[in-house]
Formats: sequence, structure tokens, C-alpha cells
Amino acid sequence: MKILIKNALIYPMTEEAAAREEPCFQGNIAIYQDRISGVGQIPEEGDFDKIIDGTDCVAIPGLVNTHTHGAMTLLRSYADDMPLMDWLQKKIWPIENLMTDADIYWGTLLSIVEMIKSGTTTFADMYIMMDQVARAVDESGMRGVLARGMTGLGANGEKALLESVDFIKNWQGKGEGRITTMMGPHAPYTCPPDFLKKALSYVEQLGVGIHIHLAETLTEVADIEKDYGKRPVALMDEVGLFQHHVLAAHVVHVNEQEIELLADKKVKVAHNPQSNMKLASGIAPVAQMLKKGITVAIGTDGASSNNNLDMIEEMRTASFLQKVAAMDPTVLPAYQVLAMATRNGADALNLTGEIGQIAVGKKADIILVDFHQPHLYPHHDAAAHLVYAAKGSDVKTVLIDGKVVMENRQLLTLDEERILYEAEKCTRRLVEQVN
Amino acid sequence: MKILIKNALIYPMTEEAAAREEPCFQGNIAIYQDRISGVGQIPEEGDFDKIIDGTDCVAIPGLVNTHTHGAMTLLRSYADDMPLMDWLQKKIWPIENLMTDADIYWGTLLSIVEMIKSGTTTFADMYIMMDQVARAVDESGMRGVLARGMTGLGANGEKALLESVDFIKNWQGKGEGRITTMMGPHAPYTCPPDFLKKALSYVEQLGVGIHIHLAETLTEVADIEKDYGKRPVALMDEVGLFQHHVLAAHVVHVNEQEIELLADKKVKVAHNPQSNMKLASGIAPVAQMLKKGITVAIGTDGASSNNNLDMIEEMRTASFLQKVAAMDPTVLPAYQVLAMATRNGADALNLTGEIGQIAVGKKADIILVDFHQPHLYPHHDAAAHLVYAAKGSDVKTVLIDGKVVMENRQLLTLDEERILYEAEKCTRRLVEQVN
Ligand SMILES: [Zn+2]
Ligand SMILES: [Zn+2]
Repeated sequence: MKILIKNALIYPMTEEAAAREEPCFQGNIAIYQDRISGVGQIPEEGDFDKIIDGTDCVAIPGLVNTHTHGAMTLLRSYADDMPLMDWLQKKIWPIENLMTDADIYWGTLLSIVEMIKSGTTTFADMYIMMDQVARAVDESGMRGVLARGMTGLGANGEKALLESVDFIKNWQGKGEGRITTMMGPHAPYTCPPDFLKKALSYVEQLGVGIHIHLAETLTEVADIEKDYGKRPVALMDEVGLFQHHVLAAHVVHVNEQEIELLADKKVKVAHNPQSNMKLASGIAPVAQMLKKGITVAIGTDGASSNNNLDMIEEMRTASFLQKVAAMDPTVLPAYQVLAMATRNGADALNLTGEIGQIAVGKKADIILVDFHQPHLYPHHDAAAHLVYAAKGSDVKTVLIDGKVVMENRQLLTLDEERILYEAEKCTRRLVEQVN
Repeated sequence: MKILIKNALIYPMTEEAAAREEPCFQGNIAIYQDRISGVGQIPEEGDFDKIIDGTDCVAIPGLVNTHTHGAMTLLRSYADDMPLMDWLQKKIWPIENLMTDADIYWGTLLSIVEMIKSGTTTFADMYIMMDQVARAVDESGMRGVLARGMTGLGANGEKALLESVDFIKNWQGKGEGRITTMMGPHAPYTCPPDFLKKALSYVEQLGVGIHIHLAETLTEVADIEKDYGKRPVALMDEVGLFQHHVLAAHVVHVNEQEIELLADKKVKVAHNPQSNMKLASGIAPVAQMLKKGITVAIGTDGASSNNNLDMIEEMRTASFLQKVAAMDPTVLPAYQVLAMATRNGADALNLTGEIGQIAVGKKADIILVDFHQPHLYPHHDAAAHLVYAAKGSDVKTVLIDGKVVMENRQLLTLDEERILYEAEKCTRRLVEQVN
């Protein structure tokens, strides 16, 4: 399959483009099978199987959601405005305990529908019954970096480890390469050092990265300090976690010294501003982490603490929150935030060089954002429009791995109506059972 | 004209509905001319001229944007990520100085298109050449509370005052009552006490309210303290401002004592969270102000410091920002934020009893939000869906003053394409002139 996207305003998000006076240009993008084969002034008269008109559109690399729990869409707006532990113990965990394979499958598909429709082409997921998540990713044409979320407390730990190993062996590289996997120890406070060390031996063996929640709340920091006499980052370092590729979600409560260590160890951070705000976890020191050279990417977290999976909105919140926290309107400017949601996302998910840029040889994960919208008029800086004014609903066409998965807002690989119907049905059953 | 909206999930936003276990119910809304004539189980078999199907929709009072500068849409993403004074002096003011009647007219129309399409039915505007703003409001079917922005420094002060008086006399109650007016002294630091006193004598004479920026930045507080030996709130109190209906925008930097005073004087606050974050002005003590009984409403501020006019997004940011600032996820719960954007908005604009609720006798300013969207599935708490997950683009149908101004996302009173074209043309001319 040869596809041409013609006449779009293109943000390649490459270092080379960033160094130019204008980091974007009007042009065409050629795609051959799953990869980008040309960017620039490509003549229309190739033997293209399909030509997509990019007029009035801005083309950017597909957005990378580096931390979520897809099937939690089923719990969107199920419980809000509650103290964290009440919310988890009284509302979220009881209903999660009832979830079946079907719930995970339809809940994940619902999340994929929402993500594609708002411009996300890759997501990092950590949840349970991951075979169903992988199945949903495989069928949908989405790209996913999947981890079986493990808690190492009690008898479940061993079972979770073995399931993780199986999951990684079964799914790594599947879905024409769209599926990659990670080991997913949930968090320092749910995975004791001994358990983590066991997990690390498998990580070494399997050659995968690690996806973990880290330093999300003050309670976590206090509890770890009480139990181990050190803070979460130091504990993880001691355990040997940082000798591997680590995708650390949240990283809200870290001091200067810890930031230095994370930078030194090349730990990748998934920043989740809306979740951190909604759950009142705190404000992550993103500007400081970026300054120290840490790869900070962006994630939405699950839909029950957000409550949507819109990465455009998440970019905006990331920038605004840092500006007001620093009392400095110059921090996290629009273009940098766009890089966080694309190129940095690729790096965070161990997909550097594969996705996150529009350049020859990269996977063709591309979105077209329709700028013919009242809230995107008049034409000024397009990066600022994208980050500060656009909506997920402005995403018009989405390509993943060289395949058009959405065109003119119509999903081509998924039956949207069926998914809404089934996700609703699963939810009604869960709510009835839990009450 | 008799209209029936049938089978919607209705949030009346009345005190009576709030007191019930469920503040919403499935039902119909009848409209006769400009007002709501029935809410509840109204039979379809009346002699309705038009029936609007509300299936899958949530009906709420039209959103009230209590602080903006509509025509600044022309400067959306024109200059971002800059220090405040550089941004104003080098970028915003020079181009504003070149604006003509046509710029204000088309810029305001662009803002109205955007606002209607994201569910706003009333906006409070403070800008220049307000006859053009009023003309745009009149023609569009929008509801507006308009104030000629006045700075009292130099010779312009007297001219601005006379223009304000003329504007109020000419436009108060026009557009079938959709236009009301306020006196608009810009801010304490641009309007010295003597000027404000003159303005107040006109306020008394004309019986209008006052729309002013107040305590927006630390610089403002420091400058006022240096010049007058007291803080902005105290200065405004001394001048006599608070003896009138005051709509104070921003109100970021106020201490406990000042909050007490504002509560005591019944000053209404327009909270602009995204602008405050983007310009790094600070975090307004909204939770504390609400606790003291102050009417806090929500506004977007101008599109050049936001960069859109989407009130649904603004509701979300208002809630999230307070939660993280207070480190308490229970503050500003969804339903309260919905009240801020509707009923409180009405109170803030001196339109109590007229708009902001879906109840018999109120003006028929109603929006239908289409919940058949992947990011609004499955069905749980609809108020949380609205505030935490919805997008402006989910607004399907909008009624203002009993007239359908948007149906199935098609504007009925405005030529959207023409407005985008003209706004773009104005902007290109301005940018060329300023360079
Ligand atoms: Zn998480
Ligand atoms: Zn303002």
C-alpha cells in the first residue's frame, strides 16, 4: 500500500526541524507499507493507492499516551470528588475485583476508540487480564506498550509474575509489531524489594523495560520512608530498578537530589497532570526535570481519574500547570510540549527511532488535525494553536503503522457503535453486581 | 413560537433540584417565545411549532462566560509563552492600537461563533469600540453584558467615560433585551481613584454595574501598595466601588481579610483559571471564596491568554486547579462547578432570575450536550461527565432567548464561513501593518 498525504502543514518533530527558524513547513508525506518513505515536495504523480488531502490540516506524529489503564474507561465518572483511599477502597477496587475478560476487552476497546478519535496512536497500558488488552490492540490497529500490573503483596505476587512472563513471551512483537511489552510492578508501596528483585531477574532475561508508578503521592513517600528508612526513588535505586529501561509514571514528589539521580540513570517520566490535579496528588517538577535532561513524556492515567483520554487537553494542562507553578509564563512553551507528547513519548516507551517523528524510515503513525475550526482561527502559530486551543475532536484522520484507522472522523478498523453498546452493557452488569 | 425539547436528561440548576437526591431527571422542556413555559412531563401533543429530540442529550442552562474580550480572538496564538509585560507592550498593545471597527466586529463575531459552538449563551465582554461588539451581539442572537474598557490615565480617560455613557444609553436593553451594559474601568492600576469616582457617579446615575479586573497579578498588588499605601481591594473599597454591583475579574491575590470584605460587600467574582495559569498570574483562592459565600463564576478571559473560549474546558480546569492547590480532591465537586458556570454566572452578571436555570419563567437559554460520544461512555454521573470529560464540541443544539441559534452543530443565525474568512482577512492586515 502506497499512501500520499498532500498539502498539509507538517511538524516533523525532528531535531533538524526544531533547529530551523520555523519548525514546520507545507508539504506532502509519502507512506510505503508501514513506514514513511518521503517527506517534503513529493509529486502527486507516483503510483499511490490512496491520496489523502491535507488542506487546512496540520500533520503531526501521532500522540503517545505514556501512562493509562484503558479498561478503566468503564469507571469514568463512576466515583469522583472523593478522598483518595475512600475512592480506591470503597469504589474502584470492589468493582475492579468483579471484572471479567469481557469487561477488560470492551473497556479497552472503548479506550482505543476514544484515543484514536483524539489523536493518540500509541498508548502504554498497565492493567489486568492483559491478554484481552493485547487482543483489543491487535484487532484495532492501535499501537500499544502493554504491562501486566503486578502487586507483590500476598499470594497474588507469584501468580502475577508468572502471568507477566507468559504475557511478554506471548505478545512481544505481535500485531505486526504494534504490540510491545513491559514488566509492570505497580508501585514501590505495593511491590516490596524482594518481589521487585524477582521481577528484575525476569526483566533481564526477557530484555524488556519496566512500567511503574513512582512517587505519586505524599502518602507513598511517607509510607516508604517509614518502612524502609528512605524515599521511594532511593529504594528503587537500591533495588536495582534503574539499571533497566524504566517508565516511571507520575513522579510528583521528588526533590533536587532525586531529580539528579533520575537524570543520571536515564529514567523516563510519564507526567499525568490532570490525574495529579484531580486526585490532588500534587504538582510534578516537570520544568526542573526537563532542565536536567530527563525525558518527560505525557500520559492521561486512567479515565476514572481524569476523566478522559484526550492527549491534546493533557498537553495544554501540562504547560499551564507548570507555568503557574513556576509563576513564569515562559516555561514549557507550546513546541516543547508537542515534543513531550510525541518524540519524548517514543523515547519513554523504548520506541526511539520507530515512532514520534515524521521522517523517512519511521513508522507511519501520523494524525491530521483539521484547523478549519472557529477556535483555531485566525492563523498564527500552529504549535500554539495545537497545544493551547485545539480539541481532540479536531483530529480528522489518523494513520497507525501505515494504515488509515480513522478518516474524516470515521473509524475504519472498529465498530464504534457496537463498542459503546457492549461497554455500557458490561458496566451495567458490574454496577449491579457490586451493589 | 412554541418549542418542545423532549426526552433530555435535564439539570435545572435550581436550589430545589439541588436539594433532591438526584439533581437531574429525564423530561421535556416547553418554551413559549423567549421564556421557558414548562419543565417536566409535558405531553408532546401541544401545538408546538418545533420539537427538538433530546434523546441521548443532557440539557443544562446555557453556559455563562463572565469575563472575556471577544475580539481578542484575532490575537489567538499570535504571541505566547512570553513574560507578561513584554507580551502586552511588544505584541498585544501595538496591534490593538491598529484595530478598526471592522476588526472589532469580525473578531467579536468569531468569538461568538466559537462560544455558541461550545455552549456559551451569555458572555461579559470588556473591550473597545463597543458599538461593534453590540452590533455583533444583536445580529448573532447571543446574549451579552457589555462594557467599554476604560483606562483613566492621560487624556483618554475623559473620552472613554463619555463613550461609556453613550454606549450604555444607546444599547442597554437592546437586541430584544439580550444586551445589557456595565461600566468598565479596566483595573485599579490603570484607573486612579479620581477617575473611578467620576465613573461611579455615572454608575449611580445610569443604574448599571461595574466590570473591572481586580488583584490579577502580584505586580498589580505591589504597584498599588507603593502608590497608595494599601492593597487593591482596600483601595477599591475606599473609592466606593463596592457600594454598587461589581463583577471583579481574576481576584487572584486576596488574603483572608480581603475575602471577608468582598463577601461582605457582595462583590461577584469572575474566575479565569486558564488565563491565570497561562500568564502565570497565580492560583485564585476560589474554594475559600465560595466557602465565605462569595458568588464565584467562571470566565475564559480573552483568546490570546487562554487560547480558546471553551467554558466546558474552563469548568474542568477550575475544579482541577482548586483540588491540587488545596491538596484535597473533594473541593469544587462537579455539580458545584456546573452551578458556577450557570447560576452563579447569572448572579455575577446581574441577571439573577433571568438566566442560569431551567425553570418556568426564566429566559430560554438552553444547551443540549450530546452524550453519545466515546469519551462520555459508559453512563455514570452526568455532572461529572460534563465537567470532567466533555468537550465543547459535544454541544449539539443551543437556544438563546427562545431561539434556536445552533441545531445539530449548524449555526442558524450566523454565516460561519464568512466570519472565518473576514476574521482571517482582518488579522492578516493587522499583522502586516504592525510589522
Ligand atoms: Zn496509573
Ligand atoms: Zn481580562
